[in-house]
Amino acid sequence: MKLISYKADGKARYGVVTESGIVDASTRLDKQFPTLRDVIAADALDQIQALIGEPADHALDAIEYDLPIPNVQKIMCAGRNYRAYHEVVEEGGPLQYPSIFGRFVSGFSAHGQDILDPKAGEQFDYEGELVAVIGKAGRHISEADALDHIVGYTIMNEGSVRDWMAMGTQNTPAKNFYKSGGIGPWIVTADEVGDPAEQHIYTRRNGEVVQDAGTELMIFDTKYLISHASKFTQLEAGDMIATGSPAGSIIGTEEKDWLKPGDVVEVEIPAIGTLSNTVVAE
Amino acid sequence: MKLISYKADGKARYGVVTESGIVDASTRLDKQFPTLRDVIAADALDQIQALIGEPADHALDAIEYDLPIPNVQKIMCAGRNYRAYHEVVEEGGPLQYPSIFGRFVSGFSAHGQDILDPKAGEQFDYEGELVAVIGKAGRHISEADALDHIVGYTIMNEGSVRDWMAMGTQNTPAKNFYKSGGIGPWIVTADEVGDPAEQHIYTRRNGEVVQDAGTELMIFDTKYLISHASKFTQLEAGDMIATGSPAGSIIGTEEKDWLKPGDVVEVEIPAIGTLSNTVVAE
Repeated sequence: MKLISYKADGKARYGVVTESGIVDASTRLDKQFPTLRDVIAADALDQIQALIGEPADHALDAIEYDLPIPNVQKIMCAGRNYRAYHEVVEEGGPLQYPSIFGRFVSGFSAHGQDILDPKAGEQFDYEGELVAVIGKAGRHISEADALDHIVGYTIMNEGSVRDWMAMGTQNTPAKNFYKSGGIGPWIVTADEVGDPAEQHIYTRRNGEVVQDAGTELMIFDTKYLISHASKFTQLEAGDMIATGSPAGSIIGTEEKDWLKPGDVVEVEIPAIGTLSNTVVAE
Repeated sequence: MKLISYKADGKARYGVVTESGIVDASTRLDKQFPTLRDVIAADALDQIQALIGEPADHALDAIEYDLPIPNVQKIMCAGRNYRAYHEVVEEGGPLQYPSIFGRFVSGFSAHGQDILDPKAGEQFDYEGELVAVIGKAGRHISEADALDHIVGYTIMNEGSVRDWMAMGTQNTPAKNFYKSGGIGPWIVTADEVGDPAEQHIYTRRNGEVVQDAGTELMIFDTKYLISHASKFTQLEAGDMIATGSPAGSIIGTEEKDWLKPGDVVEVEIPAIGTLSNTVVAE
């Protein structure tokens, strides 16, 4: 099932993407569940599933995409989490523990929206990533139980401003430029995606494949990241864990031809879909 | 003016603290402004100020404190930002740029609530800090204009789990343990606090003063931090910038007698008030 948050007729909505278009679940359920996060938190996705037979309310090409969980509470990202990445970015030796930093919602644009080449930084880069979306809340989750806490998966371009990463040890500023990344286009439920360790990430810049790797190359896999994060925080419905980006970002190339206005960045994970954003000057 | 978010009679409220108690602004304004953040975003504090003459609705000792902005969007914290701190924590030489990391709301308890000594970490420490609360949204704010964007100030115990800080370069996990810190008790408007560089922070552990320093010791002052943050992100009403903690945290002591259940941590900034939280085992 593809769960989508979107805007149509000037109103924020959520629904399910079917063959014939989007069935708007929000108008049918919003007294009980104002947002998709509320449906997930109540473990009530069966109420959305039951709508799949209904006639579609909106065509995909007639809506404005929203972030998959517009009111997401926590977005946690794993840095340096792919084996091949170490060798090129020279950020130090292998990690003993996951390198986790947070991103605020304001750092992202939805699918189809522009991302901003910042005024205050020169080295704007892409990072294609698989994102696990939490369904069932929990703390101190074991690796064995971790997948039970994932409601589905989405895609992130974890856009980063590399010159700001050189300005200290903390990634937060470099990773939180306003609308520097993308999340979307939707959440595909875990039953349809399958094993998060058997996915493939393709990032394309203006149509050219620049990242092309399987998620089995993660150093700390999705289960481990969820278990690790749940040691320090309470995971809640809608929380997102971005699992890191494979080799192929601009920082690791000879040319260092940073993103510039007009560039189109697409991140495809076949079991989920394709996230696309166009770079514009801030 | 002291702006407070709180719960009474099972309902989330906001109001103004007067000599005789709290005047509940939320019941009078909530059609227009559901939360204190909405009042601030609309630059409508005059509507709260106009209520100060009204009879108080709730006594301070009869309410449950909430976080000052329960729906805060961004909490950004400056690390290693006091001159005397460097010498004791040995985290490296002087900073060239502020060291900024983010904290999620779930990392904090309100004034008077418990903070949690975590199961997964051993070295639970306090950090008393002055917090600037953004009023007027903005991007690329100059240092000269920075104070115009501050609606008021509150207090943070930026509780940290030190053994997790040794597990990698990113502070995010160590600084985001669930309910490991405190914010409150309220926001005092900027006109009443005066110059953020002329405040004094006292942190007490079980009544004993353990941090005692003036905010003039900041390496990057409040104006600079606001200007810096606004280069990478859009500052929004209610956003918080915690300005760092002076010497005196446990990490810098010989004994390293980490916080334990039963300890009471108070952070006082005389122009604002006193934030108090009791440590309990998770």
